[in-house]
Amino acid sequence: MRSDRMSETLLPKRIALPVFASDALSSVAYAPDEILLTLGMAGGALALTQSWKIALAVAFVMIIVVMSYRQNVRAYPSGGGDYEVATTNIGPKAGLTVASALLVDYVLTVAVSVSSGVQNAGAAFDFVRGHEVIVACVIVLALTAMNLRGVRESGRAFAVPTYLFMVTVIGMAIFGLFREVTGTLPAAESASLELAPETGYEQIGAVAMVFLLLRAFSSGCAALTGVEAISNGVPAFRKPKSQNAATTLLMMGLISISMLLSMIALAHWTGVKFADDPAQQLLRDGVPVGEEYVQDTVMGQVAKSVFSEVHAGVVIVSIVTGLILILAANTAFNGFPVLASILAKDGYLPRQLHTRGDRLAFSNGILILAAAAAVLIFIYDAKVTALIQLYIVGVFVSFTLSQIGMIRHWNRHLALERDPSERGRMMRSRVINGIGATMSGTVLVVVLLTKFTHGAGFAVAAMALLYAIMLGIRRHYDRVSEELSVEEGETRHQLLPSRVHAIVLVSKIHKPTLRALAYAAATRPSRLEAVTVDVDPDETKALQDEWDRRGIPIALKSLESPYREITRPVVDYVKSIRSGNPRELVVVYIPQYVLGHWWEQVLHNQSALRLRTRLLFTPGVMVSSVPWQLESAEGAEERLDGPVAGDVRRGEGMVQR
Amino acid sequence: MRSDRMSETLLPKRIALPVFASDALSSVAYAPDEILLTLGMAGGALALTQSWKIALAVAFVMIIVVMSYRQNVRAYPSGGGDYEVATTNIGPKAGLTVASALLVDYVLTVAVSVSSGVQNAGAAFDFVRGHEVIVACVIVLALTAMNLRGVRESGRAFAVPTYLFMVTVIGMAIFGLFREVTGTLPAAESASLELAPETGYEQIGAVAMVFLLLRAFSSGCAALTGVEAISNGVPAFRKPKSQNAATTLLMMGLISISMLLSMIALAHWTGVKFADDPAQQLLRDGVPVGEEYVQDTVMGQVAKSVFSEVHAGVVIVSIVTGLILILAANTAFNGFPVLASILAKDGYLPRQLHTRGDRLAFSNGILILAAAAAVLIFIYDAKVTALIQLYIVGVFVSFTLSQIGMIRHWNRHLALERDPSERGRMMRSRVINGIGATMSGTVLVVVLLTKFTHGAGFAVAAMALLYAIMLGIRRHYDRVSEELSVEEGETRHQLLPSRVHAIVLVSKIHKPTLRALAYAAATRPSRLEAVTVDVDPDETKALQDEWDRRGIPIALKSLESPYREITRPVVDYVKSIRSGNPRELVVVYIPQYVLGHWWEQVLHNQSALRLRTRLLFTPGVMVSSVPWQLESAEGAEERLDGPVAGDVRRGEGMVQR
Repeated sequence: MRSDRMSETLLPKRIALPVFASDALSSVAYAPDEILLTLGMAGGALALTQSWKIALAVAFVMIIVVMSYRQNVRAYPSGGGDYEVATTNIGPKAGLTVASALLVDYVLTVAVSVSSGVQNAGAAFDFVRGHEVIVACVIVLALTAMNLRGVRESGRAFAVPTYLFMVTVIGMAIFGLFREVTGTLPAAESASLELAPETGYEQIGAVAMVFLLLRAFSSGCAALTGVEAISNGVPAFRKPKSQNAATTLLMMGLISISMLLSMIALAHWTGVKFADDPAQQLLRDGVPVGEEYVQDTVMGQVAKSVFSEVHAGVVIVSIVTGLILILAANTAFNGFPVLASILAKDGYLPRQLHTRGDRLAFSNGILILAAAAAVLIFIYDAKVTALIQLYIVGVFVSFTLSQIGMIRHWNRHLALERDPSERGRMMRSRVINGIGATMSGTVLVVVLLTKFTHGAGFAVAAMALLYAIMLGIRRHYDRVSEELSVEEGETRHQLLPSRVHAIVLVSKIHKPTLRALAYAAATRPSRLEAVTVDVDPDETKALQDEWDRRGIPIALKSLESPYREITRPVVDYVKSIRSGNPRELVVVYIPQYVLGHWWEQVLHNQSALRLRTRLLFTPGVMVSSVPWQLESAEGAEERLDGPVAGDVRRGEGMVQR
Repeated sequence: MRSDRMSETLLPKRIALPVFASDALSSVAYAPDEILLTLGMAGGALALTQSWKIALAVAFVMIIVVMSYRQNVRAYPSGGGDYEVATTNIGPKAGLTVASALLVDYVLTVAVSVSSGVQNAGAAFDFVRGHEVIVACVIVLALTAMNLRGVRESGRAFAVPTYLFMVTVIGMAIFGLFREVTGTLPAAESASLELAPETGYEQIGAVAMVFLLLRAFSSGCAALTGVEAISNGVPAFRKPKSQNAATTLLMMGLISISMLLSMIALAHWTGVKFADDPAQQLLRDGVPVGEEYVQDTVMGQVAKSVFSEVHAGVVIVSIVTGLILILAANTAFNGFPVLASILAKDGYLPRQLHTRGDRLAFSNGILILAAAAAVLIFIYDAKVTALIQLYIVGVFVSFTLSQIGMIRHWNRHLALERDPSERGRMMRSRVINGIGATMSGTVLVVVLLTKFTHGAGFAVAAMALLYAIMLGIRRHYDRVSEELSVEEGETRHQLLPSRVHAIVLVSKIHKPTLRALAYAAATRPSRLEAVTVDVDPDETKALQDEWDRRGIPIALKSLESPYREITRPVVDYVKSIRSGNPRELVVVYIPQYVLGHWWEQVLHNQSALRLRTRLLFTPGVMVSSVPWQLESAEGAEERLDGPVAGDVRRGEGMVQR
């Protein structure tokens, strides 16, 4: 993809919505489950009376956050998102905190979404059950491959299922509402069961009750993740970028809220019982149902009630839900590499990450994200309820710092702005961001309080570790840059070496050696000598004889090697030259075989490589590799440039910056 | 270790015996077990009546093989052993077959000995049971570490336990014989049990019976492995090398036979019952003893009878047996790297294997052997009876080809020799080797027939694979050597490049860039230019401005990169120069950071490395790395030369041979 054609890959709103919003929308597949099962820990009554209140609270937070972020995308169309906002307005450390939080949450988005998708698929496809981890890892692999091919293809591939999901869920809600109003909505299978409190929750006091409600709210807030995806992805929108992003954000918020409330309402009407520990908590005629009981997701149970006569409807809901969740993971595949690239540009991550493959996919970032998510899925056995405990912390850290940053942003602009109508707009924005900051800060405290010991602590630790690593990398780059910087006017301080002493390493007389001698001679050094290391006196003697017989007009020097080493005698010799003539530049010419296959490389060049590495540590020495292309190397060049390897390998970053 | 001090590390006979013979001697710890359990498959009666006959047959083969090998070590004092004998007298393919067989068997020696050692240790140390694989792998690791430190230390460390083992076993045999004669030898614990036939062996015909006897004999022949170790290790003996090696060989054979016969006799007298599947086959009052029954090794059961009143005796036998087995694995650690080195010298293995570290240990070979043995232990769960099925094939392939080679050796020498007394000696030797060849060939056929489907097939497959790989490597080296060889008198055919075009790659103006420019200028090329790749127009503009402002007197050329790549534009540019002027040599100078830690390397030089690799494929181009040593690189040089890493890394082979 040429730079001048990049604009063609920009996304229209109808494609941007599924690409960036699938995460937020898909959470309706697990957020209601988590609300119900958390409330259900204290028994069925609490879930029945409180679930809709919790859902409304989540919806309220969602509205505030969406309103706040509409201010962000307008003020910062460059797509730095929360990281840029926090860095610019609060400072680099706040920005780095946001970045750490978001990176961790991107990984969790992939892990949670794919795991939930696999669980949903299990309802329709029996063979998935018992192999969740493997199936989830295969899906992560497939997503990786798709994303390595580029953003544009991703957008198109993901639009259809996302829209299908919206239509399916909203359709199910409308049909369910119709049946409820007409009194024809059947009860869920689990409606007849009794939901007993979990051990330890039989009799809980008021404080514990409030805590449980807050914990349910925290879990429900999983519905809010992904809101920031759009603000990070503004540059991928068509113009007017900010306006389109803000509109998409609003659409996403409204659809998301409708879906969440619909699902809670349908679960309420159909009497779904959903438990954290179904085998023990769910009672049939007073007896626990036991391990054989398979607890379908809330989405699955509701679908079975609403489409009680149309079984195809149930299957479609199950498949579409599984698909959207898997695609939701793609949000992270879009967001993570962009953020990693920005961080790499700012020196917080290795420079290789600040680069694109030929198809505009940020290959390295995609690979890292996929690997980390696969590890999480493996550790947590692809269990959504376990993974969800680590989730959300990062997003709310990011929300809060970003909104605080926005307040400062408006403060700064208000200090300069004189136009009253413009000032009015800014002050309105500041109020919205202020409410957003207060709200997200409160939720963050609630999440940390209720979930820290349940897993959120690990997420915080991961963020702290990432923070420390990224700060370390930045300090390293700063130190190196400082060490290498050249004072203005200091350009010529580098003393030009007065003489060049060329050394050609010889072990045998063959074409590569002769080429190395010819090339070395062509550079017309002040002094040119061939050098061999005397590891075996007989071989050295034979070499010297052949050298003389062939009449090679360059002196062959033999270096003693009492310990039968190669590297050390050469390094010592080079050092002895340098110490006698500090202004003499030593150039060591090493013949090198170039072969076509990696396994051929194993059979050659090993000593040469070791020597080269070692010589690089010696000041005043330059190492020249004189390549000899063997026949097997022909065509290998094309292989290196081939469509698959080339996409990933080519064009990864600037030399030496 | 300096070359001129090598003779000081040569081994006297009293040290050479434990170093090279521990393999053969230690097999007394498992060979009787395998004979008894194989016979026992058809019930207790067969084991009772046939075991001593089988043992005598094995002892007879041992005598023949030892006599034959005494001829080998006298005729070939250089230590090529079977490989050298087969190659010289039959041909390279026979030699390579022997080499493949021996390499596989060395690996099996380590796996079998360590596994058996761990099983024996289990009798004394309960905590080992259930963790056999891990303990075995730790022991392999420990052996690896010891051997990387060198032969001399190994010899001393291994002498004491080997002698202890001999004294212990022979002492036990004498004490047992005394108690048997005086009628005070108690029966073994398992003597009261009934040994039932294994399922499928209840009623077997004459052919199947003969087959079972032959299989027991095959397993018993495990006692013969290790005989060839001495013939491979002749150069490690003190002078007169051949005479000392032959004497050591004879001693080893006699001790080994005495031990084997003693153990079988003691097992017979104490009435030991030893089963392949003890839980099912061993009956107490007609009922199988079941999975709880722990079957001690034959050595352990015999010791418990002989030292019935002296429990310390039992513990000592157990510990000493465990130790000798672990040390037996060391034979392979001595033999494998020597053989690998010889094969590498002949071009059948990568050249890195034909080299020594500072302490005369063949580091690479040791590491490969250890890794392969650990894999086998892991796959076969450290079970001796399973591993033993793969064993021995290789040794007898080697024995047979070697003895055939020896017959040809004497034929050749007899054709030239005129002295009657010398001829008489040669003809006697030829008769001995003839008997050896016939005997080992017969045993090989028996082993293949009786064990092929039980596991020997895998060993044969591994040998075939190794054979194919080694032949492939040799052909590769031959092809390369052919391709690179220079005709006599052709030395000056290499056209001297007429002009040198130097290109310095620039991404930023800093000290490494300035040094690269200075070094490039010092070589006084015909043409010198600085080149940058235009990935970002703004950055390129800024670079150009700074370049001009600083007044750097070399033109800076900017290469277009519509796809934001680095590598391709540079390669294309270099190619365009070459195509215009085929006799012009292009030298590309790449500034390179030299840092002290591997993780720092990850943060730098990635693009430079990729570009360097790619440019090596382009003919007529030389790549010069201009190193810049950062502060962190100081001291790293010393780390590379440090005592641990240095020993392994330094001096591994000639450059480019």
